[in-house]
Amino acid sequence: MSEVSLARRNFLKTGAAAAAALMASAAANAGIPAATVKKYDEEFDVVVVGSGFAGMACALKASRAGLKVLMIEKMSVVGGNSAICGGNVACPVNPVQKAQNIQDSKELFIKDCLKDGLGINYTNLLGVIADRCNDTIKFVEECGAEFVPNKMLFEAGHSVPRSYEIKAGSGSGYINPMFATMKKEGKVTVRTRCKFDDFIMDGDDVVGIVCREGYRFNAKLQSDDLENKTGKTKYIRAKMGVMLAAGGFSRDIWFRQVQDPRVVPSTDSTNQPGATAGVLIKALGIGATPVQLCWLQFLPYCNPREKGFGVSVNFTNHACMDFGIVVDRKTGKRFMDEHAGRKIKADALFAVIGNDENYPIAVADDAIVKAINPSFVKLPLEMGTVKKFNTLEELADFYKIPKEAFLEQVKKFNGYVKAGEDPEFHRNLKFSNGLDVSKAPFYGIEVSPKIHHTMGGVMINEKAQVISTKTHQPIKGLYAGGEITGGVHGASRLGTVAVIDALTFGMVAGEEFAKMAKA
Amino acid sequence: MSEVSLARRNFLKTGAAAAAALMASAAANAGIPAATVKKYDEEFDVVVVGSGFAGMACALKASRAGLKVLMIEKMSVVGGNSAICGGNVACPVNPVQKAQNIQDSKELFIKDCLKDGLGINYTNLLGVIADRCNDTIKFVEECGAEFVPNKMLFEAGHSVPRSYEIKAGSGSGYINPMFATMKKEGKVTVRTRCKFDDFIMDGDDVVGIVCREGYRFNAKLQSDDLENKTGKTKYIRAKMGVMLAAGGFSRDIWFRQVQDPRVVPSTDSTNQPGATAGVLIKALGIGATPVQLCWLQFLPYCNPREKGFGVSVNFTNHACMDFGIVVDRKTGKRFMDEHAGRKIKADALFAVIGNDENYPIAVADDAIVKAINPSFVKLPLEMGTVKKFNTLEELADFYKIPKEAFLEQVKKFNGYVKAGEDPEFHRNLKFSNGLDVSKAPFYGIEVSPKIHHTMGGVMINEKAQVISTKTHQPIKGLYAGGEITGGVHGASRLGTVAVIDALTFGMVAGEEFAKMAKA
Repeated sequence: MSEVSLARRNFLKTGAAAAAALMASAAANAGIPAATVKKYDEEFDVVVVGSGFAGMACALKASRAGLKVLMIEKMSVVGGNSAICGGNVACPVNPVQKAQNIQDSKELFIKDCLKDGLGINYTNLLGVIADRCNDTIKFVEECGAEFVPNKMLFEAGHSVPRSYEIKAGSGSGYINPMFATMKKEGKVTVRTRCKFDDFIMDGDDVVGIVCREGYRFNAKLQSDDLENKTGKTKYIRAKMGVMLAAGGFSRDIWFRQVQDPRVVPSTDSTNQPGATAGVLIKALGIGATPVQLCWLQFLPYCNPREKGFGVSVNFTNHACMDFGIVVDRKTGKRFMDEHAGRKIKADALFAVIGNDENYPIAVADDAIVKAINPSFVKLPLEMGTVKKFNTLEELADFYKIPKEAFLEQVKKFNGYVKAGEDPEFHRNLKFSNGLDVSKAPFYGIEVSPKIHHTMGGVMINEKAQVISTKTHQPIKGLYAGGEITGGVHGASRLGTVAVIDALTFGMVAGEEFAKMAKA
Repeated sequence: MSEVSLARRNFLKTGAAAAAALMASAAANAGIPAATVKKYDEEFDVVVVGSGFAGMACALKASRAGLKVLMIEKMSVVGGNSAICGGNVACPVNPVQKAQNIQDSKELFIKDCLKDGLGINYTNLLGVIADRCNDTIKFVEECGAEFVPNKMLFEAGHSVPRSYEIKAGSGSGYINPMFATMKKEGKVTVRTRCKFDDFIMDGDDVVGIVCREGYRFNAKLQSDDLENKTGKTKYIRAKMGVMLAAGGFSRDIWFRQVQDPRVVPSTDSTNQPGATAGVLIKALGIGATPVQLCWLQFLPYCNPREKGFGVSVNFTNHACMDFGIVVDRKTGKRFMDEHAGRKIKADALFAVIGNDENYPIAVADDAIVKAINPSFVKLPLEMGTVKKFNTLEELADFYKIPKEAFLEQVKKFNGYVKAGEDPEFHRNLKFSNGLDVSKAPFYGIEVSPKIHHTMGGVMINEKAQVISTKTHQPIKGLYAGGEITGGVHGASRLGTVAVIDALTFGMVAGEEFAKMAKA
């Protein structure tokens, strides 16, 4: 049996081993009937589960409409995975594009998403993002998020530069100012270490949640969602509804392997350890419609020598893949369009890496490094994941790349940049600004994909309402946005679209609550 | 907006239109608590939901162990989709292979399945199929199923001939003798027009079902599962458990489009109209784990001029794709390995068909037609989907194929058969038995994929027990087999593997009940 097969078998066995303890603790049916709740500990208009982009946006918008809002977060700090993500944000047809004469359209944005999404994206939701993204950008700027002025990033898989670059270099560039704004406005009750346990249901309607305060997440448990019993149970009424903004399940060892058995427990992920499927599974239990759960995305510019997201992703992505090249260290040759979407690149990288850890080498030069955000290279150089070389020959020697073939490849590529055309892999070189791989010193880094995003989740409509399998209609009192939802990205999402997705549908859900408050 | 986009929009709107009526009728939480059931109308040891391969196999095995078994079927006749499927059945490492010196193995079978399944198949379940398939074949032969003697079909995507050919030419070749055996033995209570409505739950355990007798399926409803209220409600206790054998959801207009928005209501399917997601959705509601629901399979050898499965599938598959060729009528050239797996071929066909209905032409000659089951060509010729021509030139004229290019292609292909190698598409010609496209008369037919199989479903273990999201362990009293389960086929199943899958896990579930009876 191959190693993968063995890991698969162990996966099934581990399940059996941990059985007894878990069996006893399982709740009866899905959701807690409201009639069985003797007394609510507290009452709010809106309860937001999760405190990343979608949760913050919803809580701010709803609270500004005069609603009493509770935002809960199971971890000890707010922000979830949003706080550590790359943070750049797509916004098709924006003023910076206009000023720079970059032709973009809603249709082109949707077409780009469908290409990497293998055609199964929900175009109605992509339409909402395209229609509302400028409102979303305005909303976060007013909270204090800062973008690099007059700059449009040309992100992989997009046909044109259409993404703002967040100054902070990560999603904290939104989370920090949004949270500061929330604290300043003083209208949202925020509770960390507060774990969602279940929905309180009046028939098919969501009317509250059961949660545990003073809970402590334990990353050492096989499944924190099933095994962790810390904290004190509270019954919270949500008069208008519950917003699910609990993120994806890239760190849920069990559920991710259920969907893709190749993903074994040791498979690394860029996500924070709290990214589990607990809330999603409870939502399915009350009839939320599952959409495209089996599509897991690998981020194709991670470094195998550092754990998790690490510090090198922006360098590999925005230096080497936007402007430099990636070569197979066995051949010295390129093997993919470095600017393709994530799925295409992850598949190509896995094929080269094979079973013998033949990690490809991503390469950039001095001019490229001077053109990118300086924060992208500083830490990786300090941590040693990025190496600096005086010549291309030295770089080839260090990584044991066949020198002649490699130098020939670099020369060819530099010619393609000049000609504006890549006959080998049809990479779009229109926006290269003349940058190639020619100016010493040179930089190299090993590349490996890691699990980054779970495309699937619950089905929502254009108003962020969760759709029921029982009625094909919205579940009254239940909204969702961000990675816990499915459909926007189809089989594979493009970079910078998750940020605008989560912020926009968080904002939309908040606006829906605000409309209800007015009515 | 393109037509697809418009259809997508309508899909979302149709939902809204039919809202009011459906909302009122929705049940409260998932499953009916046993404590609320005043009196059971009847009691059985085992209740089997569905009467296709998996249902019949389970009911027979359980009843032979002395158990009181009820098998319900919502349609007016037993057999479900199994009765109308192709019916040939994979069985790796079988006596006929041995007699014919065909080298096969469990590992090769799993490898073949993983290739078309894109690597995400559940290898533990494939292992059960490989280990038990000879028992399964013996079991159905003892019921009276008849195979073409000493014949192994070389099915597309399989590395070697490993499939028995059912004499009857369809799945009725099992359903009829199995049902006759069941009637003769007189141990199973069978009820048609009996619709599963919900599970009766004792905590997390399944202890019975609610169903409606005298129900009449109505294919004209937008969703029969939601809207059809015919029949009289009955509460049935299942002392040992419930077996789900309710099939896939290829005809569930709503749920299939939720998973793949490209599949619009008008997309044709090979399945019988009752193939909806009702039972699957109820199972998810009580915590059955959803596996790979978003993979829908298209059968790549259907005919666009006939509705549903039609009568021409076996001809196109076993004459033209096993031995003949398929050409693009615009170029006269081949464009795929005609013997590849279903996903590869469906993708290739869709690319040629495009938006202008450029249906490719599948071609066979007289020698091929004489070598296949005569039933495969008789009806298609009578119905006019297959046309007969005295010469290849006449065939080209009729379908408006560029004549020279087509004749050149046929000549090339015949050369490949002689050489035993296809340098163009690397088709495996090892088992062609010298058959090519050279002997008049010639036969032609148009080809188009149709939705055929839904790969995803509930998660089961090697004992056909359904696994819970709440505990990661089996749900007590709940078993499943066949198309309602997920994982066996991964992203795309190989032909003839569904039959052995459903029969084997039906048998396995029946054996599990039998073991419980002994204990």
